[in-house]
Amino acid sequence: MEYRFARRMGCLPPSFLGELFRVSSQPGVISFAGGLPGTEHIDVEGIARASREVMEEEGGSALQYSTTEGYLPLREYIADRYRTRLGIPASADEIQIVNGSQQCLDLVAKILVDPGDPVGMERPGYLGAIEAFSLYEPVIHTVPLTDAGPDPEIFSDLLAREPLKFFYGIPNSQNPSGRTYTQECRKMIAELLDGTDTLFYEDDAFGELFFDGKPRLPVKRFLPEQGIMSGSFSKIVAPGMRIGWISAPGPVLARFNAAKQASDLHSNFFCQVILHHYLATHDLDSHVRAVSRVYGEHCRLMCELLDDLMPPAMTHTNPEGGMFLLCTLPPGISSMKVFSEGVKEGVAILPGVPFYVDGGGDDTIRLNFSNASPEAIKEGVTRLARVISRLS
Amino acid sequence: MEYRFARRMGCLPPSFLGELFRVSSQPGVISFAGGLPGTEHIDVEGIARASREVMEEEGGSALQYSTTEGYLPLREYIADRYRTRLGIPASADEIQIVNGSQQCLDLVAKILVDPGDPVGMERPGYLGAIEAFSLYEPVIHTVPLTDAGPDPEIFSDLLAREPLKFFYGIPNSQNPSGRTYTQECRKMIAELLDGTDTLFYEDDAFGELFFDGKPRLPVKRFLPEQGIMSGSFSKIVAPGMRIGWISAPGPVLARFNAAKQASDLHSNFFCQVILHHYLATHDLDSHVRAVSRVYGEHCRLMCELLDDLMPPAMTHTNPEGGMFLLCTLPPGISSMKVFSEGVKEGVAILPGVPFYVDGGGDDTIRLNFSNASPEAIKEGVTRLARVISRLS
Repeated sequence: MEYRFARRMGCLPPSFLGELFRVSSQPGVISFAGGLPGTEHIDVEGIARASREVMEEEGGSALQYSTTEGYLPLREYIADRYRTRLGIPASADEIQIVNGSQQCLDLVAKILVDPGDPVGMERPGYLGAIEAFSLYEPVIHTVPLTDAGPDPEIFSDLLAREPLKFFYGIPNSQNPSGRTYTQECRKMIAELLDGTDTLFYEDDAFGELFFDGKPRLPVKRFLPEQGIMSGSFSKIVAPGMRIGWISAPGPVLARFNAAKQASDLHSNFFCQVILHHYLATHDLDSHVRAVSRVYGEHCRLMCELLDDLMPPAMTHTNPEGGMFLLCTLPPGISSMKVFSEGVKEGVAILPGVPFYVDGGGDDTIRLNFSNASPEAIKEGVTRLARVISRLS
Repeated sequence: MEYRFARRMGCLPPSFLGELFRVSSQPGVISFAGGLPGTEHIDVEGIARASREVMEEEGGSALQYSTTEGYLPLREYIADRYRTRLGIPASADEIQIVNGSQQCLDLVAKILVDPGDPVGMERPGYLGAIEAFSLYEPVIHTVPLTDAGPDPEIFSDLLAREPLKFFYGIPNSQNPSGRTYTQECRKMIAELLDGTDTLFYEDDAFGELFFDGKPRLPVKRFLPEQGIMSGSFSKIVAPGMRIGWISAPGPVLARFNAAKQASDLHSNFFCQVILHHYLATHDLDSHVRAVSRVYGEHCRLMCELLDDLMPPAMTHTNPEGGMFLLCTLPPGISSMKVFSEGVKEGVAILPGVPFYVDGGGDDTIRLNFSNASPEAIKEGVTRLARVISRLS
């Protein structure tokens, strides 16, 4: 038979990631390619205890069907954390639980984007967002990301030119660049968007992971009725549970809820109850502080090694938090070549290409510093320096 | 600001289910409205033990990111069960894990349906499928479901007339009717579809729950290259884990995988590992036999009470398995009226209306028999009889 797929399937960018990750997980390869938190920073014992106690106290109900919104005490915990950490007047009504914040990308596009609709994002932009959005066939416009945030002039021009359904950005420790918007940039974005019909979709996967332990104010703080904000427990508790959330204005959240119900009824309730029990009986702040401190040390080490071992024409971003940094390669070196030669040398990086939805990016590579040990970082960057030197 | 939602959001049928379930969960109301398995049939102790052992033996990896396809040992278990129970030559490569089989409905429509594309389903048809499909803006054609399966003549005419992307059906203990296709009907469907470019999407949420404990051969058995089949652990182990699966021909599964990755990266891995450990260390067959036997007793009891207490003009289906039966009301009585009057009398039913995507159905109600105790079934049907008598 002839399989007749929907047109949208032709809009998905070619995914070479599966192949990349397969290659980079070969034995002996030090991988800076993935995006995994360090497994040693997952509190397995604490989560084991929470699982035990939930099963003893309320196993039957935790294993039943539940509501699309998600477990109320968990939503209250998230709202409370927004209030105390960020000064956002959030309530549980404004929070919905999803399967990791990736699901927000899918559902936000689903409720907002008709084929041909303009949406905006950073360049480079998060690959998972590009994939999720593409299946709804938008026209994606990009704004170059500077060290301070999206380029203000280009952002403003784009807004004046295109009736964007939303602009998607990661103000805190962006993926792939590791850049953080300045507070001035956040206010500027809010001011430019205020009074338009464009939503700001703020992906806050990394906001808890600032090395200095200090939160930054979200754009939503300055633009409450136009701000969609997503968060995730994947980077601060455990990714395997696939629990994230969205916070959005009422009318947006109502549609989001309808789309979520049609997509998968609700997120796994068993993990929601265990996660909430874990959060209620453990000190997340001190856990997150410890993890951020370690990631900060890894990041500094990686930056120092890059400064010491790479040719001066190779530059890198200087993250204040998160899990990634972005290198710009010396002129004439292709990131795809660095990948293939790197694997032979025993080090895997992620080529920048898939983060540039409108082309380019082959002069950049993304490096992850959260998953490898300091020893592996030393050895990995040393191997990478050999590759760069050979290709120079 | 003006929120500008995508056109597809206007295609979602009005959802009064949320309201229905809220009303029907009031204290004192006996509910036949929902679709929950009996909580007493969830092996909380067994799952607690599996959770403990997983956390001790492999907690760190169970809490990390994983692959989009899902946990290989779990996929092998599912493929093995297809081989031994149904004689389908399945392998783990042909199986992917999803967030309950509802997610298959979303993703199958996502990869196959462009706006305006024709798809087929049973009348009455599963409400969750109607909701999931509608967001991809198909034209849904229905075929009346008889006691033997979809009406063969109308099915054949529809196939000749419309180049359906797929026909969606629940051959085993259909939701909402409780009907099961005969083997002749399954073969007839396979013969009619053979040689066309129409897929048969077989939702097998209830195939393990035949009261006689005997499996029925799926349509996919007679039509392997055109058959998509979904299954779920929600009804046989625990719904709160949200773990289901899809089995499909290679080219379909490859697109499904890409869409799943864009939607939420992967299903919660923690539950996949626990579920597999539970299945590997417990006898699912004997558990499922016991549950099916109880559901069979509940069903027979409900049918007998309906026969004894209702006016002769009210008829019902006679399920061989599953969790639901469908009543046809005496002429002139509205299912919506039965719902509102029922709640006052302390019994909740599900009006048939939302299962009829092209209108009608107000003369039918769906009753669930898996969640209430025999005592509650007796009292609930007695209350329902008073409502019907009052409305007659």
